[in-house]
Amino acid sequence: MQPSQSLAPREGLTTTELRDAWPVLSHAERAEGIGLLPRDAAEDLFFSLDAHDQAELIRSLPAGERRSWMRLLPPDDAADVVQQTPLPDREAMLGLLDEPTRKEVMGLMAYAEDHAGGLMNPRFARVRPDMSVDEAIAYLRKQGREQVETIYYTYVLDPEQRLLGVLSFRELFDADATQRVRDVMRTNIVSVTDRMSQEEVSRLFVRSGLIAIPVIDGEGRMKGIVTIDDIVHVIAEEATEDIQKLGGSEALGAPYLKVGFLQMVRKRAGWLSALFLGEMLTATAMGYFEKEIERAVVLALFVPLIISSGGNSGSQASTLVIRAIALGELRLRDWWRVVRREVAAGVALGSLLGTIGLARILSWVVLFHAYGAHYLLVGFTVAGSLVGVVTFGTMAGSLLPFVLRRLGFDPASACAPLVATLVDVSGLVIYFSVASFILRGTLL
Amino acid sequence: MQPSQSLAPREGLTTTELRDAWPVLSHAERAEGIGLLPRDAAEDLFFSLDAHDQAELIRSLPAGERRSWMRLLPPDDAADVVQQTPLPDREAMLGLLDEPTRKEVMGLMAYAEDHAGGLMNPRFARVRPDMSVDEAIAYLRKQGREQVETIYYTYVLDPEQRLLGVLSFRELFDADATQRVRDVMRTNIVSVTDRMSQEEVSRLFVRSGLIAIPVIDGEGRMKGIVTIDDIVHVIAEEATEDIQKLGGSEALGAPYLKVGFLQMVRKRAGWLSALFLGEMLTATAMGYFEKEIERAVVLALFVPLIISSGGNSGSQASTLVIRAIALGELRLRDWWRVVRREVAAGVALGSLLGTIGLARILSWVVLFHAYGAHYLLVGFTVAGSLVGVVTFGTMAGSLLPFVLRRLGFDPASACAPLVATLVDVSGLVIYFSVASFILRGTLL
Repeated sequence: MQPSQSLAPREGLTTTELRDAWPVLSHAERAEGIGLLPRDAAEDLFFSLDAHDQAELIRSLPAGERRSWMRLLPPDDAADVVQQTPLPDREAMLGLLDEPTRKEVMGLMAYAEDHAGGLMNPRFARVRPDMSVDEAIAYLRKQGREQVETIYYTYVLDPEQRLLGVLSFRELFDADATQRVRDVMRTNIVSVTDRMSQEEVSRLFVRSGLIAIPVIDGEGRMKGIVTIDDIVHVIAEEATEDIQKLGGSEALGAPYLKVGFLQMVRKRAGWLSALFLGEMLTATAMGYFEKEIERAVVLALFVPLIISSGGNSGSQASTLVIRAIALGELRLRDWWRVVRREVAAGVALGSLLGTIGLARILSWVVLFHAYGAHYLLVGFTVAGSLVGVVTFGTMAGSLLPFVLRRLGFDPASACAPLVATLVDVSGLVIYFSVASFILRGTLL
Repeated sequence: MQPSQSLAPREGLTTTELRDAWPVLSHAERAEGIGLLPRDAAEDLFFSLDAHDQAELIRSLPAGERRSWMRLLPPDDAADVVQQTPLPDREAMLGLLDEPTRKEVMGLMAYAEDHAGGLMNPRFARVRPDMSVDEAIAYLRKQGREQVETIYYTYVLDPEQRLLGVLSFRELFDADATQRVRDVMRTNIVSVTDRMSQEEVSRLFVRSGLIAIPVIDGEGRMKGIVTIDDIVHVIAEEATEDIQKLGGSEALGAPYLKVGFLQMVRKRAGWLSALFLGEMLTATAMGYFEKEIERAVVLALFVPLIISSGGNSGSQASTLVIRAIALGELRLRDWWRVVRREVAAGVALGSLLGTIGLARILSWVVLFHAYGAHYLLVGFTVAGSLVGVVTFGTMAGSLLPFVLRRLGFDPASACAPLVATLVDVSGLVIYFSVASFILRGTLL
């Protein structure tokens, strides 16, 4: 496909069309497409891209055009774009910025990308407490559009850059012109430290309903603001990471189709191998019961059913608990309350499955004369095991996230293999123990 | 625990302390705690609560105080609070509002809660295109704080309430005072219809980086704005629903500890039973191979290992694909590209697990003289089956979300049981087929 054929003839190319086609276009096609849009539409599209795509796009443009695009970005976004640029080209990207912005960007790059300091914009609207409202408005107008990305809030700082108060622009606008800023500002301030993790920052946004939150360093000086539009990405990204980890792979860290094949296999192979090594214990456990299986092959028939029921109930419980912990709905000290509740739920769910299982076995006896003379005992073995296995699975699945969290691990990534292994191996032990208890003297 | 002992002596109770203790407090304690805070801190805490807790809190307060809290809420939030109130008390809650707001709230309640119309605030800053910038600013000041929740954007409407353009407050503020609004407004507008689902609206916010998006009805009239602070809740909620569905239960729809025990068991029992009914096919499949198991009990030992490996690789693939579809990274037409890629990944991952499995069997032979005379053939059976089972699991796990989506189902909720059942049953068939091929004439 030649780019000139695919895009050039479409005079009336819209932002939406280009945005929709974006993921499947080559770098050259993207650069060409941007060039075909009117400048304001092109800028809207540019701002809607993530930092990775912005970096690629800028590098695909002719050398003379790069500067004007790079300079559109506020310092926090420019820092992300530089960080998404391969190491050898970073110096050149930084070189596109003007001197003061370059300094700001390099300051931001010193912070970890997933800390408040790495998310913040160092440009914000600031006034002094002893200004009158009218002076403050005039002062803000002078700070000019380039200096301040957002003007939802104005921050009141003392000469040491310590945060004294905050005013929404609306509040400033509505206040009496002659009043002092210190008399109209709000002093009940929500702020974060520059080392706070982006998860905590995003929870604070969800809780507080604010549009921007100030970032304070270790010495109590205000360094910048985190705005909610950067946080919506974080919330979606964190959920994606948790979902991928719960699905049993490392977080991919990039859209599915953008992750290289080998890298993707590597990210998935780790957990699959860990799960596999854990599950090898099932072969060991089965080995212990080889004699029982030889004597009553009918027992082997229900092994997949029993262990999958334990696994399903365990992963159901652990998923619910892990998400509730991630959202802050559950804390460590709630563990006992949760486990008690889950054991009760496990008994109820296990009894339900046990009843269905017994009904299934009895139907097969009637329909196909299956499972031999002791079919009733086999049925009770399966039903009884299901109650035990599902209860154990639910309990283990709900308890492990707390244990992992207490030990300092991320429950989302470490829980799945542990629950699976634990529940499958214990499931086999429970099943064959129930079997030897019920079937001793008949089949065993 | 008596509320008066737990809260009253703490003169210096802070918002943070009360917020942290919130989930474990009774209704009476919450109402008392709010009363102990200074009014501005109490209001901040009130705004940070979700609609469910706001409704409960208002109903726990003395009758005389309810009105002042209810009237703090903008119409969209008031509508949510009314919807979170049990049916018999809704009329009374609506009665707390003033007449014009009550009408707005009742209009909003006609929309589905998860549509743009149900999320929107009907109050927004509006100006006419032929006003001068100075007139527009004066007009906005007159609209007053009560009438307009947010002032990030000002919308330019014609007399039929059709949206002509938009101006950020900053742009209006910076524009030349004598220019006409129509000459400075942006006409390249992002908007949504009132029937758009909240998932689509939230994706648009993530894409566009906007703080508010106008809502347009079927006749092209602007009805309100959706603001990003309502959307951060939606993004987190949607992710929670997907995670809970992927974990094999219905979405709980409320925080873990707030869902009643019976309701929770019911939400989980459905999928567990569906999974169980599907997995019963494994017992049928095992039944077909009963003769083989009788002749070579050693085969039964590896059944849990084989099917769990297929299940793990399948759920890994389906989770990655489902999340990528939910984020809009993958579309239906990408299915062939994805499946090809997943089959290649499956062969690679299966070969890895097969090699580990073979090594495990050979070590046990050396260490414990396990698995009899034909250990090498058993080893190759297990290794070969793992390649087949993992490849099939990966392929099925990546293909099914596309198929379900194409048929109009939600991949997140319907995929897990289908993949599990399909992969477990096919895994058994693959395993025993490989076994009869390799072991015919020796063990079988």
